[in-house]
Amino acid sequence: MATDFDVIVIGAGPAGYVAAIRCAQLGFNVACIDNWLDEQGALSLGGTCLNVGCIPSKALLQSSELFEQASHSFSQHGIKLSSLELDLETMMARKNKIVSELTSGIGALLKANKVKVITGTAKLLADKKVEVVNGKDKNTFSAKNIIIASGSSSVELNAAPLTEDLIVDSTGALSFESVPSKVGVIGAGVIGLELGSVWRRLGSEVTVLEAQDVFLPMVDLKIARDAQRLYKKQGLDIKLNARLLQAQIKTVNKIKQVEVSYQDETGDHLCEFDKLIVAVGRKPNTDYIFDDEAELILDERGFIHVNDKCETSQPGVYAIGDVVRGPMLAHKGSEEGMMVAELIAGNHGVINYDLIPSVIYTHPEIAWVGKTEQQLKAAGESYKAGMFPFVASGRAKAHGDTSGMVKILSHSETDRILGVHIMGLNASELISQAVTAMALGASTEDIALTVFAHPTLSEAIHEAALAVDNRAIHIVQKKP
Amino acid sequence: MATDFDVIVIGAGPAGYVAAIRCAQLGFNVACIDNWLDEQGALSLGGTCLNVGCIPSKALLQSSELFEQASHSFSQHGIKLSSLELDLETMMARKNKIVSELTSGIGALLKANKVKVITGTAKLLADKKVEVVNGKDKNTFSAKNIIIASGSSSVELNAAPLTEDLIVDSTGALSFESVPSKVGVIGAGVIGLELGSVWRRLGSEVTVLEAQDVFLPMVDLKIARDAQRLYKKQGLDIKLNARLLQAQIKTVNKIKQVEVSYQDETGDHLCEFDKLIVAVGRKPNTDYIFDDEAELILDERGFIHVNDKCETSQPGVYAIGDVVRGPMLAHKGSEEGMMVAELIAGNHGVINYDLIPSVIYTHPEIAWVGKTEQQLKAAGESYKAGMFPFVASGRAKAHGDTSGMVKILSHSETDRILGVHIMGLNASELISQAVTAMALGASTEDIALTVFAHPTLSEAIHEAALAVDNRAIHIVQKKP
Repeated sequence: MATDFDVIVIGAGPAGYVAAIRCAQLGFNVACIDNWLDEQGALSLGGTCLNVGCIPSKALLQSSELFEQASHSFSQHGIKLSSLELDLETMMARKNKIVSELTSGIGALLKANKVKVITGTAKLLADKKVEVVNGKDKNTFSAKNIIIASGSSSVELNAAPLTEDLIVDSTGALSFESVPSKVGVIGAGVIGLELGSVWRRLGSEVTVLEAQDVFLPMVDLKIARDAQRLYKKQGLDIKLNARLLQAQIKTVNKIKQVEVSYQDETGDHLCEFDKLIVAVGRKPNTDYIFDDEAELILDERGFIHVNDKCETSQPGVYAIGDVVRGPMLAHKGSEEGMMVAELIAGNHGVINYDLIPSVIYTHPEIAWVGKTEQQLKAAGESYKAGMFPFVASGRAKAHGDTSGMVKILSHSETDRILGVHIMGLNASELISQAVTAMALGASTEDIALTVFAHPTLSEAIHEAALAVDNRAIHIVQKKP
Repeated sequence: MATDFDVIVIGAGPAGYVAAIRCAQLGFNVACIDNWLDEQGALSLGGTCLNVGCIPSKALLQSSELFEQASHSFSQHGIKLSSLELDLETMMARKNKIVSELTSGIGALLKANKVKVITGTAKLLADKKVEVVNGKDKNTFSAKNIIIASGSSSVELNAAPLTEDLIVDSTGALSFESVPSKVGVIGAGVIGLELGSVWRRLGSEVTVLEAQDVFLPMVDLKIARDAQRLYKKQGLDIKLNARLLQAQIKTVNKIKQVEVSYQDETGDHLCEFDKLIVAVGRKPNTDYIFDDEAELILDERGFIHVNDKCETSQPGVYAIGDVVRGPMLAHKGSEEGMMVAELIAGNHGVINYDLIPSVIYTHPEIAWVGKTEQQLKAAGESYKAGMFPFVASGRAKAHGDTSGMVKILSHSETDRILGVHIMGLNASELISQAVTAMALGASTEDIALTVFAHPTLSEAIHEAALAVDNRAIHIVQKKP
């Protein structure tokens, strides 16, 4: 086996495999090392995102959403069902099939691009050497360029130690074998809300405990408030300012349950769940990824220190994705992978970190890009705001789902768009229009002059842009 | 009643009512005249689009799509139904409710904007006077500016004269009282395909007869071919090169049927349907809209002649929407309404007619903007093409629907995007990204450098842009 490469990529998640493919397209001799094994012990490429993150959660979100629609909204469409039953095993099998198709697809792409895939746990040594351990085998490889893309892991809590099947992280929450009656979720972040939504739709009573007293602080304030109200109406019981004290397994009548104590402003509380999902964030996988001699610098939170080109302190060593600063999002990592590949090839490469979209895949979806209104206020920026609710959208009405809105913020003087915030059906797709427009430096006047197909949800973006200057058509506008 | 206005708008469809609202926002004293009556004989604003076009068809497309999903794809999601039944009356009632909410919503918007709504049939006389007839009443109004937005009507065929309930136009096809066993559709255009899809999903056997030998000639050739194959697989029997000879009512065993004879390259054929939908296009409503003395000029197809500012040959008289050149699309009419309002106010107003998106709301949806590959070839343009199929999209897989693709065409030298063609889930929403990008003069490199949220269908646009230069990540790219 060749041991010397142009580029070695450590990690085959969405940052690493994209970097590897792009490097190979650029003519480099590339190796990509990963140690993620499936239940059969075979290498399963794609990292957290494909194996236990974005993809399986979206598969379950889609299936559970259809189940909820069938339960609640089919009758108004004139679709009559005499009985509706959940076959969780089939739903899970579908999810697993999607995951295995996509992970093996990454293998096929790497192969077609002639990337050498190496199974094992990698450690960066000095002089751009990489030691790979796989069972009893230990090999050392070297390369002109190293790209570290070792990803992140769920943060564990001492107060709620994971057990095999009762207290679980997001991975465990994707594979319950039956629908729990009562599910507790620690953390009302993106992952907690998405997984909580899946199990609520499938029939669980779901309680979310969030230590902070602000709900979704990174989201536009109005949308966060509306979302909290909608989730509550759906049946998600979200308790803010609820700090976990302890979670422990308790056996009552031979049935194991999770007893959770937490504290809020009214005192201490105790509750019981069949399953507890711990979703309090993720931490970079940097504990064992490099030897001291590699001399990389970590920041105080364990991220590998890089500049805006993802260069570490060592020439020729790059780090991308969840192991470096910035949002822990698959698409951020993939973009960094592409940028670094271009930089290694001597090409131009750049990422506008201000324009990375975020999505929460609940129902309705929430998506945003750029500044929130609260950020602009705090910064003392002079801005204008335009809003348009989906209740005034013909397409949303035809869909039978009119929750949510579009909010556009632009600079008072230049009219340049500073932030776009969407809650509603397909917000995850609609936000790309906003990113594209902002990437091209658009003003709301540019959006106002663009023609939007009718009837579409996208027209709400047009109307919100018009509303910035009090000239939306389908809501009543105050005279300026 | 006041009889003199700053602006009179003839027609309260999406061109007219938008023009009226925008004129009112700009401070004008506005009247809007319409004669569309609902079944109770009350004025129903919104024109064809809201009453019998975009909105009711999308309501039925949504309901019928859910019915089809429940019938065909729920089992793979692990959702078990013991029986599934269609309650067409409820489905139709939902559609009617959406229509009445939206049409009365337009009334509320016009009222809030202080637009005077006048019921009756309008005719433009000389000197910007308008005669309005409503039953026995006849009144004359005048205005400094007239905007004609009288819309269009279905083209009727002498060979298939409409009957009350057997041979119908698109309006009749939205209100069948039961699901016909066999439906014939004359015309494989947008309306024929959408309505054919609705009834096929609800259980009809649908045959579409199209006189042309090319399927969807305005659509990208590859997408049109793929669509034809997909529609066929769904059960839509589309016969090209099939020229209608005669349709007539025939009574067999006391049951009335439609006997249709048509001709193709193999000879004459005869078939029978329970319902026949005639959907062979629309013609502008200009027969009675103005008096000879108004001296407007019509083109050879009956459209009012206007320049690119929608000015007719008479100063102060504008015409917008389906009565003038350009695609007969609600959003094109609305944009013209806004433009004319701005022009009347002395403001800047412009429409880029090259960037009006088109959508076919079948499953999968088809949407496009700009030039097709066949148009570029015919014009001898030097272009590059990038394609990305949804089968390689993680979000499409999670949705369980991977049909279709994105194709982006850009100029070989400047890389400026010339056309974007999408077939797939939510194509109607995705196309707005392309319109926005093209309106801002984007290159595929601009899209390549934009960050797209993962996992979304929108990533296919990113990948198609990358594919233009053979650097898509999730499909195998040939070495250049």
